[in-house]
Amino acid sequence: MSRPAPKRVAESSTTMSELVMPNDTNPQGNLMGGNMLRWMDICCAICAGKHCAKPVVTASVDNVAFQSAIKNGEVITLEANVTRAFNTSIEVYVEVFAATMQGTHPRRTHHAFFTFVALDRDNGSPVPVPELLPLTDIEQQRYEAALNRRELRLVLAGRLKPEQAGQLQELFRQQA
Amino acid sequence: MSRPAPKRVAESSTTMSELVMPNDTNPQGNLMGGNMLRWMDICCAICAGKHCAKPVVTASVDNVAFQSAIKNGEVITLEANVTRAFNTSIEVYVEVFAATMQGTHPRRTHHAFFTFVALDRDNGSPVPVPELLPLTDIEQQRYEAALNRRELRLVLAGRLKPEQAGQLQELFRQQA
Amino acid sequence: MSRPAPKRVAESSTTMSELVMPNDTNPQGNLMGGNMLRWMDICCAICAGKHCAKPVVTASVDNVAFQSAIKNGEVITLEANVTRAFNTSIEVYVEVFAATMQGTHPRRTHHAFFTFVALDRDNGSPVPVPELLPLTDIEQQRYEAALNRRELRLVLAGRLKPEQAGQLQELFRQQA
Amino acid sequence: MSRPAPKRVAESSTTMSELVMPNDTNPQGNLMGGNMLRWMDICCAICAGKHCAKPVVTASVDNVAFQSAIKNGEVITLEANVTRAFNTSIEVYVEVFAATMQGTHPRRTHHAFFTFVALDRDNGSPVPVPELLPLTDIEQQRYEAALNRRELRLVLAGRLKPEQAGQLQELFRQQA
Amino acid sequence: MSRPAPKRVAESSTTMSELVMPNDTNPQGNLMGGNMLRWMDICCAICAGKHCAKPVVTASVDNVAFQSAIKNGEVITLEANVTRAFNTSIEVYVEVFAATMQGTHPRRTHHAFFTFVALDRDNGSPVPVPELLPLTDIEQQRYEAALNRRELRLVLAGRLKPEQAGQLQELFRQQA
Amino acid sequence: MSRPAPKRVAESSTTMSELVMPNDTNPQGNLMGGNMLRWMDICCAICAGKHCAKPVVTASVDNVAFQSAIKNGEVITLEANVTRAFNTSIEVYVEVFAATMQGTHPRRTHHAFFTFVALDRDNGSPVPVPELLPLTDIEQQRYEAALNRRELRLVLAGRLKPEQAGQLQELFRQQA
Repeated sequence: MSRPAPKRVAESSTTMSELVMPNDTNPQGNLMGGNMLRWMDICCAICAGKHCAKPVVTASVDNVAFQSAIKNGEVITLEANVTRAFNTSIEVYVEVFAATMQGTHPRRTHHAFFTFVALDRDNGSPVPVPELLPLTDIEQQRYEAALNRRELRLVLAGRLKPEQAGQLQELFRQQA
Repeated sequence: MSRPAPKRVAESSTTMSELVMPNDTNPQGNLMGGNMLRWMDICCAICAGKHCAKPVVTASVDNVAFQSAIKNGEVITLEANVTRAFNTSIEVYVEVFAATMQGTHPRRTHHAFFTFVALDRDNGSPVPVPELLPLTDIEQQRYEAALNRRELRLVLAGRLKPEQAGQLQELFRQQA
Repeated sequence: MSRPAPKRVAESSTTMSELVMPNDTNPQGNLMGGNMLRWMDICCAICAGKHCAKPVVTASVDNVAFQSAIKNGEVITLEANVTRAFNTSIEVYVEVFAATMQGTHPRRTHHAFFTFVALDRDNGSPVPVPELLPLTDIEQQRYEAALNRRELRLVLAGRLKPEQAGQLQELFRQQA
Repeated sequence: MSRPAPKRVAESSTTMSELVMPNDTNPQGNLMGGNMLRWMDICCAICAGKHCAKPVVTASVDNVAFQSAIKNGEVITLEANVTRAFNTSIEVYVEVFAATMQGTHPRRTHHAFFTFVALDRDNGSPVPVPELLPLTDIEQQRYEAALNRRELRLVLAGRLKPEQAGQLQELFRQQA
Repeated sequence: MSRPAPKRVAESSTTMSELVMPNDTNPQGNLMGGNMLRWMDICCAICAGKHCAKPVVTASVDNVAFQSAIKNGEVITLEANVTRAFNTSIEVYVEVFAATMQGTHPRRTHHAFFTFVALDRDNGSPVPVPELLPLTDIEQQRYEAALNRRELRLVLAGRLKPEQAGQLQELFRQQA
Repeated sequence: MSRPAPKRVAESSTTMSELVMPNDTNPQGNLMGGNMLRWMDICCAICAGKHCAKPVVTASVDNVAFQSAIKNGEVITLEANVTRAFNTSIEVYVEVFAATMQGTHPRRTHHAFFTFVALDRDNGSPVPVPELLPLTDIEQQRYEAALNRRELRLVLAGRLKPEQAGQLQELFRQQA
């Protein structure tokens, strides 16, 4: 199947706002991590779907570290952007911001990388996705660093041996 | 209580994306109007809260006409902007767009005006809200037309007699 | 398609009770307007479906003004009745009452008019609906006033010019 | 604490309509029994709260036999009425009806008896509830049969020995 | 249709943990009985499905007496086990335990018996289920007592006359 | 604050079953990744709470790779076990299994490591947690490998420089 035409980051950029409701929080009144992960997955899936113009399924989420508690009644804003397209999968970066409903105490609470696989609508098997055209400096940086993240994902999934992970090898050797 | 400093439209502009899930639809697989109204209310309430920097409650929603069915699995995008601030209340305009998750069949499905009242956090009574500074042409148009909408709202709520509704009188007389 | 036999108001009258749960409220503990709108739409849709004996979709909701805050733990009662049938659409009136779960502080909080279009089950296109037979005085009043509301709806949706809105013209001219 | 004034059945009669949504059903598209039980509990609790004018908690539900599958998109109507008040508890009878949203295939699907205990708002301990005044024949029948049901409940809960269950003894002995 | 091979209790034993969220509770902060019943039905349905290896529908739930309030933020553990298979139906026993999320105040709150009917996947009519092989003493006890419970269910459903309920007759006569 | 007495893995082992409902799935009928992450977080949080006997908050989740699509109507089983306690945090390992409701097509779909921080109930600051006593071989292996995972987490969060990550250095150098 021939590869679709490349796309820019802005064409699939996705913003999502959510209001933290009582049922999203634990008994201490803080947003539960699992609800945040669910919203992040939906926001990234919408972004991935726009880029691929195909149904997509979540293939992985990289390490997420939660840095700031979010309270009942606060407003969450998620911003998702594609960082790189591989053959049949793409990587999406999502940043999460929080503030009170009145706009006070604004902060970035955490971020993450999700990967998705695009599927053929009829037979459900993976299909080629459009390449990404990184334009700005920050888009270019994220595009290049995507190879390191991909290598680490493969090592962690046991699908690549550490001695074959050239990028990571270099990273750690340089430091020695 | 002295009035807070005026704000621009962009300071409280709010975007919200939602993925239509099976439970949001009727047995024919179309998004139920009531779920759409619920999302519109949340998006506008977040926008109003940002402008007022106070807790807000929904005071009213104007006539909403649904123009296009939205399907299970489609992505909704809501964009809310303040159009005018009155003494203790503000009017928010929300436009709703839909497309498939793959970005096809994009369209504007409908729009509405909500009004909110800002409340004092301690005693729950209405408090003055910041004035709005309309800058662009479209912001200016919406700002001015807000008086007509407000008058109609008061007539419909039985709080203003038709013969006192000067703006509406003129609108209908001109046409005669 | 021939028109089905007329029906009385009582044949589709619908009552719905709901208990306000924590997730239905804002951080101040008041029922969010959007949840109320969602329940109103469901109650009216059930009523409309009974009258039309067809699948129905929400076409519009008229101006709604919320007059009384409703608290977490209170009981809502919605009563929906058809007010008039047009060719392929009907208008439904819904009144909303609230009280504590113990029955104290009973009050009418607000009301609204929804319109629905009846659809053919197979091809999804609009189909004729049964006429309404208004029997009581109040049913007759609502039946007649429906024409004014319909005219206003068409004007607000930009589908009727103010100078063609004869009923509304008269309403405002009388007062001048 | 002195006993509040008696009340009639009609004073707390409660009607609730629900639309069966996809998430309420099992993979075969039938309403799950557990969701039905949840709605029955809410409807009866509202009814019990009205009669007692106090917070109430569910003490028990009697044997429920589901007689008819209910489908996605059907409309459920629950009708709850108090049948008898004991010292600090009351028994509520709920009947459940189903039909398609278009009003076809109407039927009674099942019924049940719930009991509730009324609680003091401050210290949470049981408080006396108003006696019930049964007026019609059917109200009178349910009122009298409530003693048998109560005896069976106590036997099943192991709080009454079969040899002390006079009403049940008689029921089975008569037949021998 | 020939009967499938018998199974042991352990082959379908099912454990389910739930965290009580704010929306599961009443305004006093106690888990609503109806939510508990919904979880019990799901846990028993999973257990029944494993034993029958067929789609199952809830046929009945026996008397349930709630013995201990469960609070917002507590952890519920449900344990469901098949007690006896009849021709096309099976009985499942579920015990419910609660404790704080920190493991303190552990207790058994209540228990119940559900019955399910196994259905043919294609035509939806009842199909034979595997017999149960009770192995331990407690499995044997529950297996034998299942006949009494079944008889009571039939009497309560009006499908067996008290004078034909031999097991129950004996139970009450012995005591006389 | 003195450290509480050590605990064994089995003391906080937690099993959770969930039935995949329509609303948990995407339009292709597969469980959405985000809903799975939410259940994993709840199951691990219950497990962590039992071990720590304190309120806990999610600090991080490690890379998760989804290996097998899960369908509407399937049954998910999650098993969470503590792998190692650090000073004020603990690591929890969760494995996820899926099968049809009839028990066919059983498989392990994926696994993950979550970390949680235990909080003082009164002032919300981190508190020491009980040490873990690994007993079996597999418990011992997971206990030891926890140091590598912790180091990687710190490097990924930018809180440890690669040249200080002794365990990871060695891992990659050995292979060179």
